Amino acid sequence: MQALPGFRDFLPSDCAVRNYIFAQWREVSRRYGFVEYDGPLLEDLELFKKKSGDEIGKQLYDFTDKGGRAVALRPEMTPTLARMVAGAHRDFRKPMKWFCVPQMFRYERMQRGRLREHYQYNCDIIGDAGIEADVELIAVCIDMLRSFGFGADDVVVRISDREFWVEFLRGQDLPEDQWQQTLEVIDKSEREPREKTAARLGELAEPVLKILDGGGQSEKLGRLMDGLRQRGLAEFATVDLGIVRGLAYYTGVVFEAFDRGRNLRAIAGGGRYDNLIAQLSDGTASLPAIGFAMGDVVLGELMQNHAGARAKMEAAVARERELDAYVVIAKEERRGDAIAVVQALRNQHYRVDYPLSPTKVGRQFQHAEQLGAHAAVLFGDEWPQVKVKDLATREEQLVPQEELLAHLSASASLSSRGR
Amino acid sequence: MQALPGFRDFLPSDCAVRNYIFAQWREVSRRYGFVEYDGPLLEDLELFKKKSGDEIGKQLYDFTDKGGRAVALRPEMTPTLARMVAGAHRDFRKPMKWFCVPQMFRYERMQRGRLREHYQYNCDIIGDAGIEADVELIAVCIDMLRSFGFGADDVVVRISDREFWVEFLRGQDLPEDQWQQTLEVIDKSEREPREKTAARLGELAEPVLKILDGGGQSEKLGRLMDGLRQRGLAEFATVDLGIVRGLAYYTGVVFEAFDRGRNLRAIAGGGRYDNLIAQLSDGTASLPAIGFAMGDVVLGELMQNHAGARAKMEAAVARERELDAYVVIAKEERRGDAIAVVQALRNQHYRVDYPLSPTKVGRQFQHAEQLGAHAAVLFGDEWPQVKVKDLATREEQLVPQEELLAHLSASASLSSRGR
Repeated sequence: MQALPGFRDFLPSDCAVRNYIFAQWREVSRRYGFVEYDGPLLEDLELFKKKSGDEIGKQLYDFTDKGGRAVALRPEMTPTLARMVAGAHRDFRKPMKWFCVPQMFRYERMQRGRLREHYQYNCDIIGDAGIEADVELIAVCIDMLRSFGFGADDVVVRISDREFWVEFLRGQDLPEDQWQQTLEVIDKSEREPREKTAARLGELAEPVLKILDGGGQSEKLGRLMDGLRQRGLAEFATVDLGIVRGLAYYTGVVFEAFDRGRNLRAIAGGGRYDNLIAQLSDGTASLPAIGFAMGDVVLGELMQNHAGARAKMEAAVARERELDAYVVIAKEERRGDAIAVVQALRNQHYRVDYPLSPTKVGRQFQHAEQLGAHAAVLFGDEWPQVKVKDLATREEQLVPQEELLAHLSASASLSSRGR
Repeated sequence: MQALPGFRDFLPSDCAVRNYIFAQWREVSRRYGFVEYDGPLLEDLELFKKKSGDEIGKQLYDFTDKGGRAVALRPEMTPTLARMVAGAHRDFRKPMKWFCVPQMFRYERMQRGRLREHYQYNCDIIGDAGIEADVELIAVCIDMLRSFGFGADDVVVRISDREFWVEFLRGQDLPEDQWQQTLEVIDKSEREPREKTAARLGELAEPVLKILDGGGQSEKLGRLMDGLRQRGLAEFATVDLGIVRGLAYYTGVVFEAFDRGRNLRAIAGGGRYDNLIAQLSDGTASLPAIGFAMGDVVLGELMQNHAGARAKMEAAVARERELDAYVVIAKEERRGDAIAVVQALRNQHYRVDYPLSPTKVGRQFQHAEQLGAHAAVLFGDEWPQVKVKDLATREEQLVPQEELLAHLSASASLSSRGR
């Protein structure tokens, strides 16, 4: 039997990569003063339909539960966030700086390599409508990418402003019910021939294309870039009014992060949604907000293609699994003494393994190496002395058994993890 | 709108408790040389039915997906583990020491306080049939409980052996197809009146009750206790032949952990299942195995009721959210200078927050305290000097702005997290 199509098994090596990504997401978030939350993986179907209408409905992983209730595996976090904020925001000082690391689901016709689940970091500032909140949030996004080992030559955050376009459209005498449609054409313009975009824009083609060619000026985005410059992060960002993001609910600054080579889909994306929480909570909570999301799949591909990021990831993966010591039992008569030392080291929080059943000494050392142990501690003919081998330097030392624990705790052979 | 019945929202304070539990599960597992894996949250329904038949079927959170496939949200990890091991075990040295921290689901008629999801640590040793693997696994379980702050007066692991009962039943001339039924009566005996158990046991009542009263001898369990004694863990364990665990697939040692006061359900439980992987993998992999599971809900209740464990948990929760510094902007003219310092400290991996918009100084200090900041760094009238206040000792110091970063990095006011 296999995993269901579109679902991943995480063997230990895959799980370690996932843990590294999660750890970076959490570490950088906390550096910026964000706190973690989570919601249920399954929600009432209505919650998701309310936000996105039928647009998302087609890809929803929804079903009817045994009680006849229409439910869905979450496709995104914002509806759950809005629901939780509506219920609890009075207990929290504003702005609320919240992040989470949820798994998301979608159901669509399977194509090769398309997944039905992924993990998606979400980060939101709720209760502050100012431009500095925009700067702070985009700074998290940039610093997140930096923390994985990417530089300004590798990635770029393209920043735009829905308000700019709304003001433009208002000046064009276009009925308001056609705005969203025009924004969607602009959103797609980069991936379509110029003539097709022009044809779809009709009378608006000339002024819009002029803006997309760099002819637009936004004082707000200028201030936003100044804010990033002040933090030394401006080289990671660029103003690009061609970014509008398809979703209807964005109200201000929007942005997307890409690899500079544009080989992959967007790594991250987000924007300001000042009306959405009120809408999703039926007015229970009316709070401005800005947020972004970053998935594990595109990020993972990007890391695999970048030597520095890959090396950083591999080092972290090795650190996660490395043992402090492997206890080699060369004489079965010494098993009891060996296990006592195994336990004593574990009691001091060191990571220690040993052979559960009689095993050839050569294989035990091989195992110690494969497990990335710092030291091998050999119980054998030398008893009551114990041989300690530093597996990095290959240095060996004979230590009297009564001094062994003190020696190992003081030794550079073990990591600084234990105490 | 609310979360679905039986599903939990994790507000930041709840999420921090969950993260603490997960961190302990991972930390102790790695100390014992276990590596983490994970599987899909959704599996083919057949995978679960194959193991447990209709017994579990009633509580399965199963449904039909949009493609007409019968699937289920995982109720337990072992079937997924067996599936993954069957596919990949040739790439791994035995024994495989694997753990995971998955979320599990069940569907049953809602009762007050009953959840439809919980998190359940799973820990398995695969590919070793010896008693020392049993000792190692039970040692993980005990050390896990110790790591949360419980002592031998608080919790006990009751250990039994299915083989003991199978040998007993074989000696009783009872048809083999009635063994499982008898084991289930023994399993329930503790929670039922003695007369009822006796009636259900029929002719077996006398010898069985004698064993349950302490009249049974198991040489194997004696050796197992010796192994725990060698590790200094025996006081946490007791031989108790009344434990048989209901499930049919256990083949040897079985155990359950309880609070000594017996106020709660089992905290953890597991046992040896030497035939199950072969059965679930249709013989693709034939590997002996022993494993156990521990859920987050009973554990959480136990922590709440134990002063020491609760204090340990609360300290960890405070550590997770604590800030190194809160930058107070007393004069808006200094905002730019302040933000440059915020960013410089974050670049050194410190956790730093500051007010995104103009805020009264008193409220900023209040915020700093609430966020558990170690230090407040005040940009105001003292410029070009900056006031640094240690929020634990209340000591204040004026530092020239050009020396500020060096001062803070060297200062005991900040945690040792950054560099």
